[in-house]
This record gives sequence, structure tokens and C-alpha cells, in this order.
Amino acid sequence: MGIKYSVFIAASLDGFIARKNGSLDWLPGNDGQVQVEDTGYNDFYAAVDTLVMGRNTYEFVQSFDAWPFAGKRVVVLSSNYPFTMQVVAEHVWGTSASPVELDKQLEQLGVKHVYVDGGQTIQSYLRAGLIAELTVTRIPVLLGEGISLFGTLQHDIGLRHRSTRMFNNGMVQSKYEVIR
Amino acid sequence: MGIKYSVFIAASLDGFIARKNGSLDWLPGNDGQVQVEDTGYNDFYAAVDTLVMGRNTYEFVQSFDAWPFAGKRVVVLSSNYPFTMQVVAEHVWGTSASPVELDKQLEQLGVKHVYVDGGQTIQSYLRAGLIAELTVTRIPVLLGEGISLFGTLQHDIGLRHRSTRMFNNGMVQSKYEVIR
Repeated sequence: MGIKYSVFIAASLDGFIARKNGSLDWLPGNDGQVQVEDTGYNDFYAAVDTLVMGRNTYEFVQSFDAWPFAGKRVVVLSSNYPFTMQVVAEHVWGTSASPVELDKQLEQLGVKHVYVDGGQTIQSYLRAGLIAELTVTRIPVLLGEGISLFGTLQHDIGLRHRSTRMFNNGMVQSKYEVIR
Repeated sequence: MGIKYSVFIAASLDGFIARKNGSLDWLPGNDGQVQVEDTGYNDFYAAVDTLVMGRNTYEFVQSFDAWPFAGKRVVVLSSNYPFTMQVVAEHVWGTSASPVELDKQLEQLGVKHVYVDGGQTIQSYLRAGLIAELTVTRIPVLLGEGISLFGTLQHDIGLRHRSTRMFNNGMVQSKYEVIR
């Protein structure tokens, strides 16, 4: 039983997770008008013990008023960090290890379930064949450009559709398992 | 009441409608094993009187054993054709007109409902603000590269989610109206 790696993310219908500048102003609830619905994020978040994200996502999250990942282990991927995980802030480690190399380090720490976040990080974990589960919440908007959820692959990745839920505000959330 | 322009298309979860070489081998039913389910295509197709597609899609369709659009008016967009629609085959017209310019020509022919097909054509009609309805059937696979369903836009296009259906083979079909 290895570590489970999961993705839980919102994307525009044309596959962007943020505008080019990182803005999420197109997400429901960010206009101050639409009531945000329970997307299952809280249950998902409660089930993970560790987050892995890239430096861009880490710096974006640091700009928030409050650190949103209190109580979770956070690992930041960046070529600026050493190979072996190094403490860079409270409960935050940095590493330049690849997803597969980091997997070994995390196993030694007893990590069970990792929340993989950020476009580049999700793409590198998909390419490494590590992602087990993908939950994508489609926002009913076309942005035309931005930071892509998905990227190039060396070969097709087959998925097994597990469930789809619709929300009153037009969001459609589908959960997939990666077929190994 | 102008002409209604609709899109009805299958796409991989990462937003491709074909491989780079046009191949649709990743669609259910194209492996000779999976039973193709009724996606509503026949009802959709019966409701349109005209198809608009680019030259790439036209040439791809011409390679089929049988012409799949018998009885429908087909308009092929290509810079090789004159501005005014010109007969290029039985029930097939070619034109280099833009979507907005072609709209006027089609209105004079009494066209009511157009099926817009092919990646570049769908993208140019979205950019022109002409698409009223989008039905996207997500196939549970990541291809990594191919011909994109969506492209760049000058501004966001807001969508209204109308319905979502799931199929036993893992396809998820969502219908959206473009908010004008």
C-alpha cells in the first residue's frame, strides 16, 4: 500500500485553473454575490495528511490573509531547494526531488494521502503515473487563456468515471480514478 | 430571430477532440468492443438543417466510406473559396466568408439551426459570439496533446449549465447555453 495521491480542483470549461496572473476572480463566490456551495472540499481536505504544490502556488497562497493549510504537512517543489526535504517554514518543507523520489521520502514519514495542487505539479504527478484520483469541478465559463490544468503526456491516461454531481450555480463536479 | 448555432462534440477530459493526426481511436466504440450509447446525437442532428465546418474536418469526413451528412446543407469554410457561397459538391458549399458574414448569406437561404463542427471552426464561431448552445461529451481519458476544442478568446464567455447526463461507459455529457 503506497501513498495515495489525489487532485481536487476547479477548472473552467476550457481547462484553466487560474488566469495567467494567477487570478481566481472567475470562481463562484469570488464576486461576493454567488453563495459558494459545498463541493465536498472540506471532506476531501480532512482526508489528506500532506499537500504537495509548486513554488508558484506556494507563493500565491502565502499572499492570503491566513495560511489555509494549518495542521497539514506542506511540501513545496522547487529547484531552489535541496534534494532532501528541508524545513522552510512551520510545517512546510521544500525539496527539488522528483515526484517519484519524493514518494520515497514521504513514505518514510508515514504519509498516507497527498493532495497534489497547482498546474505544473499536477501535470508532473500525472506524467509520473502517481495520481490515483482526480476530482474536477467545472465552472461554467470559457476563459480563453490561463494556467492549464492538464499538460503533455508520454502516453494516454485512461480514467474510470466514479461519480458526477451538479450544483445550483452551474458547477459540474466529476470524480475519476486513474486506470493503472 | 436569427440563426441558432450549436456545438455537439466529444472531447477528452483534457480538452482534445482528436489526436494531432485527426484520429478518433480513443472514442468509445472505435475499439470495436464498447457498445456506443445513445448520446442524443441523433436527436440533435435531426434538429439542424445546416452544418458548418472547416476544410480539415471536411477532408477528414470525405475519407469515410459513406457521406454522413446526406440530406443536410454543408458549408465548408476555407480561404480557398470565394466570399459568396459556391457549390463544391452535392449539397456542399464552400466560402471564405467570416462567421458573421456567412450568417447573412445563410439567413437569406432561410437557415434556422446550424451545427458548427471542427476545432478551428468552433473556436472562430465562439470568438464571433455566435454560438448559442454547447453540448460537450467528456470521454474519460487524458490524451496529452491533439486538436483542441477551445482556443483563445478576446474576453470571458459566461455559460449557463442546462443539464448533465452520465453514461455507463464513463462519458459525462453537459449542455451549456452561452450567456449573451
